[in-house]
Formats: sequence, structure tokens, C-alpha cells
Amino acid sequence: MTRLVQKRSRKTGLPPGTAVHIGEKKSEQTRIQLLHYDAVQVTERELEDIEDGESLRPGTGVTWVHVTGVHDVALLDKIGRGFGLHPLVLEDISNTDQRPKFEDYGDYIYVVLKMLHDGPSSRDIEAEQVSVIFGKDFVLSFEEAEPTVFDPVRERIRAGRARVRERGADYLAYSLLDAVVDNYFSLLEQVGERMELLQDELLTLPTPRMQQSLHRLRREMVLLRKSVWPLREVLSGLERGRSGLIREDTYIYLRDVYDHTVHVIDTIETFRDMIGGLMDIYLMSLSNRMNEIMKVLTIIATIFMPLSFIASLYGMNFRHMPELDWPWGYPLVLLLMVAVTGGLLLFFRRKKWI
Amino acid sequence: MTRLVQKRSRKTGLPPGTAVHIGEKKSEQTRIQLLHYDAVQVTERELEDIEDGESLRPGTGVTWVHVTGVHDVALLDKIGRGFGLHPLVLEDISNTDQRPKFEDYGDYIYVVLKMLHDGPSSRDIEAEQVSVIFGKDFVLSFEEAEPTVFDPVRERIRAGRARVRERGADYLAYSLLDAVVDNYFSLLEQVGERMELLQDELLTLPTPRMQQSLHRLRREMVLLRKSVWPLREVLSGLERGRSGLIREDTYIYLRDVYDHTVHVIDTIETFRDMIGGLMDIYLMSLSNRMNEIMKVLTIIATIFMPLSFIASLYGMNFRHMPELDWPWGYPLVLLLMVAVTGGLLLFFRRKKWI
Amino acid sequence: MTRLVQKRSRKTGLPPGTAVHIGEKKSEQTRIQLLHYDAVQVTERELEDIEDGESLRPGTGVTWVHVTGVHDVALLDKIGRGFGLHPLVLEDISNTDQRPKFEDYGDYIYVVLKMLHDGPSSRDIEAEQVSVIFGKDFVLSFEEAEPTVFDPVRERIRAGRARVRERGADYLAYSLLDAVVDNYFSLLEQVGERMELLQDELLTLPTPRMQQSLHRLRREMVLLRKSVWPLREVLSGLERGRSGLIREDTYIYLRDVYDHTVHVIDTIETFRDMIGGLMDIYLMSLSNRMNEIMKVLTIIATIFMPLSFIASLYGMNFRHMPELDWPWGYPLVLLLMVAVTGGLLLFFRRKKWI
Amino acid sequence: MTRLVQKRSRKTGLPPGTAVHIGEKKSEQTRIQLLHYDAVQVTERELEDIEDGESLRPGTGVTWVHVTGVHDVALLDKIGRGFGLHPLVLEDISNTDQRPKFEDYGDYIYVVLKMLHDGPSSRDIEAEQVSVIFGKDFVLSFEEAEPTVFDPVRERIRAGRARVRERGADYLAYSLLDAVVDNYFSLLEQVGERMELLQDELLTLPTPRMQQSLHRLRREMVLLRKSVWPLREVLSGLERGRSGLIREDTYIYLRDVYDHTVHVIDTIETFRDMIGGLMDIYLMSLSNRMNEIMKVLTIIATIFMPLSFIASLYGMNFRHMPELDWPWGYPLVLLLMVAVTGGLLLFFRRKKWI
Amino acid sequence: MTRLVQKRSRKTGLPPGTAVHIGEKKSEQTRIQLLHYDAVQVTERELEDIEDGESLRPGTGVTWVHVTGVHDVALLDKIGRGFGLHPLVLEDISNTDQRPKFEDYGDYIYVVLKMLHDGPSSRDIEAEQVSVIFGKDFVLSFEEAEPTVFDPVRERIRAGRARVRERGADYLAYSLLDAVVDNYFSLLEQVGERMELLQDELLTLPTPRMQQSLHRLRREMVLLRKSVWPLREVLSGLERGRSGLIREDTYIYLRDVYDHTVHVIDTIETFRDMIGGLMDIYLMSLSNRMNEIMKVLTIIATIFMPLSFIASLYGMNFRHMPELDWPWGYPLVLLLMVAVTGGLLLFFRRKKWI
Repeated sequence: MTRLVQKRSRKTGLPPGTAVHIGEKKSEQTRIQLLHYDAVQVTERELEDIEDGESLRPGTGVTWVHVTGVHDVALLDKIGRGFGLHPLVLEDISNTDQRPKFEDYGDYIYVVLKMLHDGPSSRDIEAEQVSVIFGKDFVLSFEEAEPTVFDPVRERIRAGRARVRERGADYLAYSLLDAVVDNYFSLLEQVGERMELLQDELLTLPTPRMQQSLHRLRREMVLLRKSVWPLREVLSGLERGRSGLIREDTYIYLRDVYDHTVHVIDTIETFRDMIGGLMDIYLMSLSNRMNEIMKVLTIIATIFMPLSFIASLYGMNFRHMPELDWPWGYPLVLLLMVAVTGGLLLFFRRKKWI
Repeated sequence: MTRLVQKRSRKTGLPPGTAVHIGEKKSEQTRIQLLHYDAVQVTERELEDIEDGESLRPGTGVTWVHVTGVHDVALLDKIGRGFGLHPLVLEDISNTDQRPKFEDYGDYIYVVLKMLHDGPSSRDIEAEQVSVIFGKDFVLSFEEAEPTVFDPVRERIRAGRARVRERGADYLAYSLLDAVVDNYFSLLEQVGERMELLQDELLTLPTPRMQQSLHRLRREMVLLRKSVWPLREVLSGLERGRSGLIREDTYIYLRDVYDHTVHVIDTIETFRDMIGGLMDIYLMSLSNRMNEIMKVLTIIATIFMPLSFIASLYGMNFRHMPELDWPWGYPLVLLLMVAVTGGLLLFFRRKKWI
Repeated sequence: MTRLVQKRSRKTGLPPGTAVHIGEKKSEQTRIQLLHYDAVQVTERELEDIEDGESLRPGTGVTWVHVTGVHDVALLDKIGRGFGLHPLVLEDISNTDQRPKFEDYGDYIYVVLKMLHDGPSSRDIEAEQVSVIFGKDFVLSFEEAEPTVFDPVRERIRAGRARVRERGADYLAYSLLDAVVDNYFSLLEQVGERMELLQDELLTLPTPRMQQSLHRLRREMVLLRKSVWPLREVLSGLERGRSGLIREDTYIYLRDVYDHTVHVIDTIETFRDMIGGLMDIYLMSLSNRMNEIMKVLTIIATIFMPLSFIASLYGMNFRHMPELDWPWGYPLVLLLMVAVTGGLLLFFRRKKWI
Repeated sequence: MTRLVQKRSRKTGLPPGTAVHIGEKKSEQTRIQLLHYDAVQVTERELEDIEDGESLRPGTGVTWVHVTGVHDVALLDKIGRGFGLHPLVLEDISNTDQRPKFEDYGDYIYVVLKMLHDGPSSRDIEAEQVSVIFGKDFVLSFEEAEPTVFDPVRERIRAGRARVRERGADYLAYSLLDAVVDNYFSLLEQVGERMELLQDELLTLPTPRMQQSLHRLRREMVLLRKSVWPLREVLSGLERGRSGLIREDTYIYLRDVYDHTVHVIDTIETFRDMIGGLMDIYLMSLSNRMNEIMKVLTIIATIFMPLSFIASLYGMNFRHMPELDWPWGYPLVLLLMVAVTGGLLLFFRRKKWI
Repeated sequence: MTRLVQKRSRKTGLPPGTAVHIGEKKSEQTRIQLLHYDAVQVTERELEDIEDGESLRPGTGVTWVHVTGVHDVALLDKIGRGFGLHPLVLEDISNTDQRPKFEDYGDYIYVVLKMLHDGPSSRDIEAEQVSVIFGKDFVLSFEEAEPTVFDPVRERIRAGRARVRERGADYLAYSLLDAVVDNYFSLLEQVGERMELLQDELLTLPTPRMQQSLHRLRREMVLLRKSVWPLREVLSGLERGRSGLIREDTYIYLRDVYDHTVHVIDTIETFRDMIGGLMDIYLMSLSNRMNEIMKVLTIIATIFMPLSFIASLYGMNFRHMPELDWPWGYPLVLLLMVAVTGGLLLFFRRKKWI
């Protein structure tokens, strides 16, 4: 399961602006993918190390540097120097326990997001931190591990016919945000299906096992919520900020991602509501089941206790018990017992218990 | 039941602005109805295909193109080119998993709504997406399937004496929104009746079956809420937006739909509150019922256990049990039993159990 | 019981601005009371029909037309023409399923309110719609049925010494609003008393019947809330609107009604809180009661089951049971039984069950 | 217990601005204390009646008139005329069912507060209404009954060395508000102690009696909340209002009372949260206790029912029951019984019931 | 456990602005640490007493006076005079029951915070009040007791290479705030771990003991919330206030602490949500367990009651009971008993109870 809070203790007491990797180390190797494109051509390279940020930007077109793995602090420092990033930005990239946020540093805008996907054991949702930094002619993106949801974007750039090729770094950054938000929908789709299944089971035959499924669903919603809610502020902030780095015709796309995010949030809230409803259903089923069990017990006890009492009565060994000597004593007692049973059954039927 | 989330997976990874039909295909055939009117005359045509948006607009009067079925992406593209729509608008029309919203593109305003009606099996509420686009002299409306709530509006236009004939495209668009919101009231009316019925049943004799009715009501409220809440923002946004496409004297009508929407929202919240109350009543009834069952069991057991014990006592086979030889032994024991029973009944009455 | 939603189906499909009576027809006859006053004199008339609104306004003083019964749409139309009302206003007056609101039409202000009173069978709160329209020199008020809370205002005008006589139509309108809000207090007073009574009963001896009282209280709070919350917006809107129809020195009175409304809302929320608390108390009582019942059962069973077992043991018919022949067998067994009972009683006391 | 709503029925139908005493009459006698001070001297007088407000204000220094008891409407009228108060103010002073509020009448500011203290039987919190009116050189304060929390302020004025002596009426008014808010803290201190005690009891041994204590705590929080929440608006309103009656250097003190009020509100909300937690604990304890009771019952029944059955079996009177004649029959049956008991005990231990 | 409300009674009735120590006296000795630094050098001194604030500020560099222990009111007064603090500030420093807040007094800014750490018995979270005052060239900090979280900051200043040395008093103040907020994360980390552990236990085998752990977690969240929520306002207030005491390039750091605080708040709310979920799980487990217990009881009773009845039947002593004399009577009865048992077991299996 994803930890709710990352171990930060390694960082306590260090001066602010110190980049220290916080969080699980999800990939062993750090991988740097460089992609440079304009409307005419695309060049792609895998970098071993990074030397000088400036040389990566030829002046025209858009440079996209994608880094997988954020635990190599020395590398982050080099990138930071190369692209002129503020120390707090580097600190935030390597600290994977960040709340989604954006910051406008004038020359570049820094956005932190959470990417969610089912964990390997498909037991819980895993959150992975994604950082996107974009300036006038470059985009830096940082992920904790592969696989990435950015591959389709890369494909579109390569393919050459996409809108992204004719537009600037702001549109590329938007495409990355869009890919992350799109990914939330597919996650919600899966969760929604599991929830519908659970609902059908609950309404037919509830079992104690379902309470764990319910708890898991609820926990996932809590995690989702924590990741997606702040994203709304991020996107509306980007829109309101009206940074010079974002062209006018990109805003309509940002508005579109914003709408999608609000839709995701609505759906999360709806799911929370539904899960609350399922919990109520489950509790009611438990109560109903208890009532049924107790009814069986009460019916059995109420019928057999009087009968047993009558039988015990005539099992007493008193010398003087006239009934015992009557020739019709036994049949009469049997009749009495039948009468008692019948009476009690009538009583239960009147109470609508049977 | 309406799915809570539509399958979007077909769309994941595609570039933004690509129109792909998302959602259930609710109508087989796409149908295009063209209606052109001004204060003097009305012409109506069923179109096979659409060639050129411009030719549909003769320059005067209002052109209303109503499309039933949104899965024919090629057709949408043609309409889009004809009326100069943004690719994101076309994408949103064909993606039926949209949150209600409006967008002002300058030349036209795009509004997405949800129309709700009882499903065919009348088991759950179905949500259908309605898109309305209006410009200076045209209105485009898109529905997923027939039947439509727009028929009365069409009737009024045909009839010739209606206010709508003397006014522009903005008033027609308003009439369509009004028809959708009016429809919510009739839905709430039905739900409200079912709820009142359920309440009466719950207060007289609760059965386990009711918990499913309660769950269904609650689920419907969740769906309704998700559809109607965003509509409020849409309408207040339209009002505040003060677009040049909407004439001054139409705003008072928009304000009216806005008020209706707030009323619908109030009613939904009231219903949610009531359903919560019914759930509490149901849970209390279950507890009360359990108490009653247990009381019966306890009374029976408490009376017959001592009696049976006394009977068993005198069923022991000890050689030396003086009571067994007393001539009044048996009657005395019977008397003792009557006394015990009487005492216990008094005890229960004092405890107000019987 | 008051319906939660009024039947609106009669209206579905009609063009907006069509006055159709929606709701229960609460009075058979429509009654029109005309009252004209200035600081010097008062004239009062009962009208059969209304011909021309203008003639009712002599130019000086204030004209108050009070209409009881809103189902006579033809009459409303006449009044509408006479006083120059917008069709949407007439539609709203006759549709008694309105959310409280106000609208400033420049020449007049239209206010919709809900008046609440105990129903005839005093089983539930009834909501009645009140419309107040005031211009420079006239006030129109519409009620669904008699009796009215406006009578004291009328009395004060007749009496001649009241502040209302020296002031304009705006002050009269304020007096009507004040009368409606004052009425909420007396309703809350009654509900509060019922709630305190219920609380005392719940804390002494809860019975299943109380769950219906609780439900009724809760339902009434839901209805009250739905009626009063929007009134706050109405009054703060009137205040902020700064319409030319309201004189400066009337605003302090409007502010006063506003404060009263907020007080009513506070009290409603407090009541909701208290009712929630009573429900919790009731549920806890049920659980406690169940515990007590089960304790009695368990004590009885735990004591008599071992005793009965011992008795049954010596009721076995084995030929070789040496204890049966012991002369002290019977007394010893009785002693054993006493010892067992004593031990169990000690056990229960240690567990604090008895 | 403090009534949740005061009887207002006496007032229904009266014209607005009519002073009528609403609420319990808490003091028999009305007492008027006059205190006049400046930096140099203090004069103090008890007034029998009030004649002319003006004569009470010599032109320099601050005049403080404190009235205990608000049911003497005639006296209030005299004071009102003397100090030029608006009729609505007088109405609000005598109506003790007010929501805390402030109103700026230009020449004076009117503030309504609630003072809370434990009732005489210390069974519930009592709310008492305090009105403070201050102008350029006077302060009027009205209380329902003695004892007052204003005594320390009076002491400080008499003592002569206090800051209050050098400052104006605004600072005195602030001192009174501060005294009321300070009083909330001591109340919360008591409630907090009761709550901690209750928590300790609940975690050790919950008894049904505690549910009444919980309910009382909750009810008190509801009352407190209703009194203190509006005070926040009052104080921030006073601050924002920037009335000419309040000197610049008094605002920092007003800000301080505001902070205290927010702190009180925070604490109330924290307490509400804790009480909710205690209720959950209590409910869980009830469930746990029930489980324990049922476990005892089930263990006893499960052990003795089979044993009794075996004993009954060999108590049957069939002529041909070979076991009865075996010499080792009886011991073998006893052995069987021990084995059954042992097996069941093992079963229970495996289920972790014992 | 930390008291929810501190005893303030010592203060009631005192004039505002009187410094009185409120709260537990956490350290015996008051300790004053003086640190003066600029980019070039650092001087450090432990002060016995404080004479004159001015002399501590040589005109260049930053003076940091850190006081441990706030119960020595006389000392506070001296410091107050030395640095020109308002009496209300001194009052707030010594009253340790403050809500986090900040106040801009022009020449200096006063910030109150809560530092949280596990108590000595590690039974509950302890809250300690920290006051930070900073002006153009000085920082005063007050703590209730050692150990302090400010030590790392002191270390960094001594080390000489840190950014803090090159910047002003505002950056030092920020560093102190940052240290406090960082500390919240490590606390949340511990709480999160305890919560995850509890969750695992709850999902495997719930015991009554866990309900105390749940309650403790919940209580801690309430305390945390009360301490951290107001901090958000403090930090956004500092940012918006744009005081001249804070340099432009420090704001980005303040923004960073603000983001951390929001993250802490998000995490607290997430934890509250999770704890609510755990409580539900626990309640469901209790219900499930009860159902299981009752099922065992019911199965046992339902099987053995009929069997015992049959056995008792043939233990009756009627003279004329033909079955008793049948040679196959006994075996037939045994067979009947086996049949009854089998039938009941089938019944239970069909009901899915076994």
C-alpha cells in the first residue's frame, strides 16, 4: 500500500532549499530522454549525463528533457544550474511527498502533479510524483519511475502531423498535464466497475469479506481526493496567473483540462457518496441478518421449552400423580403438546415472524 | 442502471481535440432536423446529410438544426466545419461523459446539459447528454436519442403565435434550456412520490426489501445531484458573461431558469435529507424489532427454565427423597410452579416488558 | 402532510410566462380587499372583480390590494395588466411551488415568501405561498388561503396612530414581510416545546412511538429550512439592491427583519442539531435496553442450565448409580445446586451485571 | 434548563419598534447604577429613577449607566428618550431572545451579547442577554440579573490607576465586551474538565447514566455555539465599520477580543468533535459489552445443552435399553460428558472466545 | 494528556494587557540565549538577566534572543521595554493558551505558533507555545521548555556557510517557522505509522482494546487540527500583509512554508477521514462478530432442544406408553434423533449458516 506520509525524517533540520530525496526509491537507474522539435523536424537523444543546460536549447523549437528517477540529487543540481532553477524547485522535485502546486518563477513555471495507477499487486492505488517545468522554449519533466503516461505525447510529436508540433513549450506542457488527468479517468473507470460489482454482491448476499473491499475503496477515494483536489487550484491558478509564458490560444486548452479535473473531482465525490451508501447497506444487512438469526432461535426456544417442560412434568417421580395412571394420560399429553405448538405457531404468524 | 463513469479508455492517448464517441450508443440512426423561422414563416426539413453550414443560414430569421445521435463523428466534423466550431467543441459533443458547462467562443456559445429520465425498465434514472450551441442566427442542438423534451418547443414555433417566433436565437436556446430544467421537476415529482410511499411503509411495517428501495433512492439523488449542481454555475456564468449574443430582454428569462435550477437543487438537497431520515428510521425499526424478539425469547426462557428445573428435580431417582412420598407433594409442586410463573410475570410487568 | 414537490406536470411543455395554477387549491373563492390610506384617511373596499389598475391609484397615499386565492388565472391577468406586471411575475404568483426570491423590475419589486403554520389536523407544518409586489404608491399581496397573518397590519392601518400611516408603500411591504417572519418565531416556539417534551420522555423511558415523533420533527425542520434559508438571500438582496423604491429610513427596518431571519435560521440549525442529539440518545437507549434484556436472559440461562443438568443427571435410569442409594444423596445434590447458584451469582456480581 | 426559544407570542401582531419584555423575568427589582469618571475623579450613584439623560452627561469624562433588569419597559423608554435611542434599539433591549449583533446608529453603537453561566442548580448553562450602547461620552449597559461580570471593570475604574480611566467611552465598552468573552473561557474550562472526567469513566466502565451526561454536554455546546458564533461577526463588523466613535488605538484591543472570540469558537468546535468521539466510544462499548454478554450465554448454552441431552437420553424409560444395565454404564456416560465439555472448551479457545 | 483548555481563572477580572503566566509551568529555570551574527562573524552569549534591549542591537547584523520559559513575567516586562513591545504582546507571550496568530505592529511582527511533540510518557501529543517576534534587525523567540526544534537553525548560523547568514532578521524568522512546520511532518509520520498498524490489526482481529487506540488517534487529530489550521491564516496573512520588514526575496520562502502548512492540513484531514473509516470497520467487525456468536448459539439450541424434548418425552412415567415396551423402541428413537439432527443441519446449510 502507498504510505500516507513519506518518511521525511532524513530532511528534518536541514536548511531550506536543500535537495534531498524523500520517498521510496522507485527506479534504480536515472534515465534522461532529450527531444527537440519544431514544425519541421524532430531529434531525439538519450543522455548519459547532463553538462550544460544552455547547449540543449538551440534557440528555435522546443526542447523537452524527460528525467525518470528523482533520487540522483547531483544530477538534479546540474539540471538546475543549466536551466537556472531556484533551489526550492530542486528540493521539491526530489521530495516526492509534495502537494500538487504550481509556481511562477517568471522565466519558467513549475508544476507538481500526482500520477496514480494500480500498484503491481493491484492491491492499492500507487501515487507517483510528476514535476513539469516549462519556459519559453523548453519543458523539463520528472517522473519517479517508468512506465510513463507521457509516451503517447512523445508518439504524437514523432508522428509529425500533430498540433503539438506547431505550437510552443506551453502547449507541450499542457499536453503532459492532459495526459495525467486523462489517466485519472481510466483509474476511476476501474474503481467504478469494482464498486458496481460490490454493490450487486452486497444487495444479494453480504459477507464479512466485503467490509475489507469497502474499506479499500474508501481508502482509495481518500488517496485520490488528496491528489486531485489541489490540482484544481493549480489549473485555475495557471489560468488566472496569465503568465507571459502561456500563449493566448493555449488558455482554451488549459480551461479544458481544468474542466476535466473538476469532472474528476465531481466523480470522486460521487463515489465517496456511493461508498457511504454501500456501508449503510452493509450495516443494515448485518442488522437484518441478526434479526433473522434471532427469530429462528426465539421460535425454536419458544416452541420447545414449553414442550420439554410438560414432558419433564410427567417425568417426576411423585408417588401420587393421578394423571400417570389414567389410561388416556399419554395420548392426552401428546394432544396438549400439539395444541401448544399450534398456538405458538399462530402467535408467530400473527407477529409476521414466519 | 446508468454507469457512473463512461468507458473512456478508447480515448486515452489520443491528442486533445479528437472527436471520439464515448458512452453507450443509444440510437442506431443519426437524424438531422432543420427548422428555419422568423416572425412570418416557418420551414421545416429532414436532412439526409449536411453539406455546407453556411447555406443553411439564409441571413434572416433563426436556423435550428437538431441532431439526434452523436456517434457519427464524420457528420459532427461536417457540422463543425459548416458552423465554424472549435475542435474541442466537437470532441465534447461526441464524448457523452461531460460535466455540464458552458463556453463562450465569441461567435457562438456552447452549453452542455444532462437530460434525465426514467430508464426503460424504470429501474434507474438514465442520464442523456444534450449539447446546445447558439450564435447570432442559429441554434444547434445534439441529443443522444429520442424521445426528446424539445418537441413542445418545436410545436410552439410551428404554432406561430408564440413569443419565440418574434425573438432571436438566444431566446430559442433559452427555451431549450428551460425545457430541460422543467423536465427535472417532473422527475423530482415522481421520486418524491416514491419517497412518500416508502416513508409510509417504513413507519408502519419495515421489511428488508425496503433497504434496496432506500438505496436506489439515494443513488438516484447522487446521480441527480451530479447532473444539476454544475448547471447552476452554467446559468449564473451565462448571466454574468454578458455575451453580445444574448439580448438584454432575454436575461430576465435566463434569470428565471436560474431560479428554477436553484429550486431543483434545493429540492434535491431536501430529498437527500429526507432519505437520510428514512435510513435512520429504518435502522431504528430494526433495533426496535430486535429488542422485541429478544424480549419474547427472554420472557419464555425465564419462565420455563425454572419450571423445567423444578420438574427435573423431582424426576431424580434418589432412593431417599421424602417429598416424593408426601401425599400432597405433587399438588404442592404444581402450586410452586404457578407461584414462580406469577412472580416472574410480575417482574416483567414491573420492567414494562409485557 | 405538505407535499414536498407540487404537481407541475400540468405545466410541462407550456411556453414560459404562461400563468397556470400549480399546487393544491386551498380556497374556493377568490377575495380581493382594497385598502387606500394616507396620513389623514383610510378607505377600505371589497372588490368583486378588478377592472383597471390605474383607477385604483388616486395619485396620493398608498393603495394596498390583497388577493386571497391564486388559482383564478384570468383575474391575475387583469391585475397584471392594470399594474403593468411582467408575465413571468404572474406565472410565479400562480405557481405556488416557488423558492422564496425577490426581483427588482424597476417600477416595482416582486417578493415571494413562504408562510408556515400547523396544518388543520396539526399533524404537519403547512407551507403557503405569499407574494408581495410593491411600487411607488401601491402594494399587491397574494395569499393562497385565509386566515392571514396580515390582519394585525391591517388593524394598525385602520387604527390610524401607527407609524405605517405616515410612511410609504415600502414601509407597508416591510410590515408584511415582518409579519411573516414573526410568524416563524411562534412556529419555532411550538416546535421547541414539543422537542423539549420529547427529550424529557426520551431520557426517562424511550418507546418505539417516539421514533415517529422524532421523524416528524426532523421532517418539519427540513421543510422549515427549505422555506427560510432563501429568505435570507432575499432580504440581503433587497438591502444591497438599493432600489429607488425603498426610502433611506426604511432600510434600518429591513435590516431588522434580516436580523430576525438570521435568528430564525440559527434556531432551525440549533434544532436540527438537537434532533440529531435526540436520535443518538434514542439509539443508545435501544442498545442499552437490549443489553439489559440480554443480561437477564444470560443470567437466567447461566444459572438454570447447570442446575437442570445436575437434576437430569440423577434422573438417569442406570442400574448402577451409587449416589442414588446414599442416604444423604438428595440433600448433598441440593447443596451442590445451592453452591453452583451462589458461585454464579458471585461471578455476575464481579462482572457488575447484577 | 434554558429554553431554546423564548415565548414571543406576547409580541406577535404588535407594530415593529414596540418595546415588550420577552423572556423569563430574572430579577424582581430594576437597579440603575451611575458611574461618571475622567482621569482625575470618579463619582458613583445609585439612581431610583431616570429623568433626563442629558443631565447625566456633564460634558467631560465618561458616564456609565448600568441597568440590571430589562422588564421595566417604561424605564427603558425614559432612557431611550434621554440618550436619543432608536425605538428598535429599545425593542431589542427588552426582548431577551436576540441573536448577538451590533448596529451603528451614527451617534451611538448598539451591541447585543450573551453572557453564559452555570445555572443555580448547576444542571445547565444559562444564557443572559447583555446590551451595551456607547456614544462619544457615555456607555449604557443592560443586564437581565445580578451577579454581573462587570464588577471587576467597575473595580478597576474606582482603583484609579487603570488604563480605562485615561481613555474614552469606547475603551470602557471594549472592557465590558472583554469581560464577557473572558467569562466564556472560564465556562469552557469547567465544561472541559467535566468532559475529561467523563472520558476517563467511559474508557474504564461505561454506564447508561453517562448517556445523559453526554447529551447534556452536547446540548451545552449547541447553546454555547449559538451564543458565540455571531459574536465573531459582531467584532469583525465593529473593526471593519471604522466608526468615528472608536479611537484608533482602541482597535488593537478590539482585535484582541476578536482573537479571543475566535479562540473560544475553535475550542467549542474542538469540544463538539470530542463529544462526538465520546459518543462513538460509548456506542462501541455498548456493542462490545453486548458481545461479551452473548459470548457468556453462548458458551454456557453450548456446553450444557449437549450434557443435558445425554442425561435426558438415559433418563428414558424404555424397557430395552442395554446401556442402563451395563455395570460401567454410568461412569462411561460421565466420561463422555467430560469429553464433550473438553471438546467444546477447545473449540471456544480456538475461536478466541475464552 | 494535554489539557484541552488551560486554566485561565487566575486571569479573570484582571485588566487587559496584564501579563500573567497561564498554563503548566514546563521549565523551572528561565534561560536566555543571545546570538548576534552578520555575514562575517557570529557572537554567542548566555544572559543571566536582560538590562537594556537597545544595547543588544549594535546596529548592524541580526540579534537573536531566545528565551526558554515564559513564566517569569518580570523578565518579559524588561524585554518588552527593551524592544518596545506592546503590553498585549507580553500578555500573549505569557498566556500559553493562545490560538496561533500574527500581528503587525509596524516596527515588529509578532507570531504565535504551537509546537507539537509526543509527551514524555508518549501517551498523548503535547502542545507547546512558541512566540516569534522580529523587527528590522532582531528576532525574539520564546519557548515554554527545552528541548527545542530551533537547534538546527542555530547550528546552521554557527556553521557560517548557510544562506541564513547573508540574509536579514526576516529570513531567520522564516527559518524558525520552517523548523516548527517541519516538525509537524515528523509527528504526522509517527501517527501515520501507528494508524497503519492499527488498520492491519483491525482487519485481522479486532479487540476491544483497539477502541482506545482509535479514540486516542482521533483525539490527537483534534489537537493537531486546532494547532495547525490557524497557522494557515497566519502565513497567508504574513504574505498578503506585505510588511516592510520582510524583503521581497524572502516571500518565496514564506510561500514555501505556507505550502507545507497546507500539506500538513491536507494530511490531517486525510487522517481524520481514515480514522473515521477505521471506526466504521471496527463497528462492522463488532456486528459481524455478534452475528457469528449468535449463529453458534442458535445452531446449538436448534439442534439440542428438539433432541432433549424427545428424550424427555420418553422419560415420562405414564403407565400406558406403548412405545416404551416395544423391543425396537429405543433404537427407533435414536434413529429419529439422528434424522432430526440431519434435517436441521441441512436447513442451516441451505441458509448458509454453516
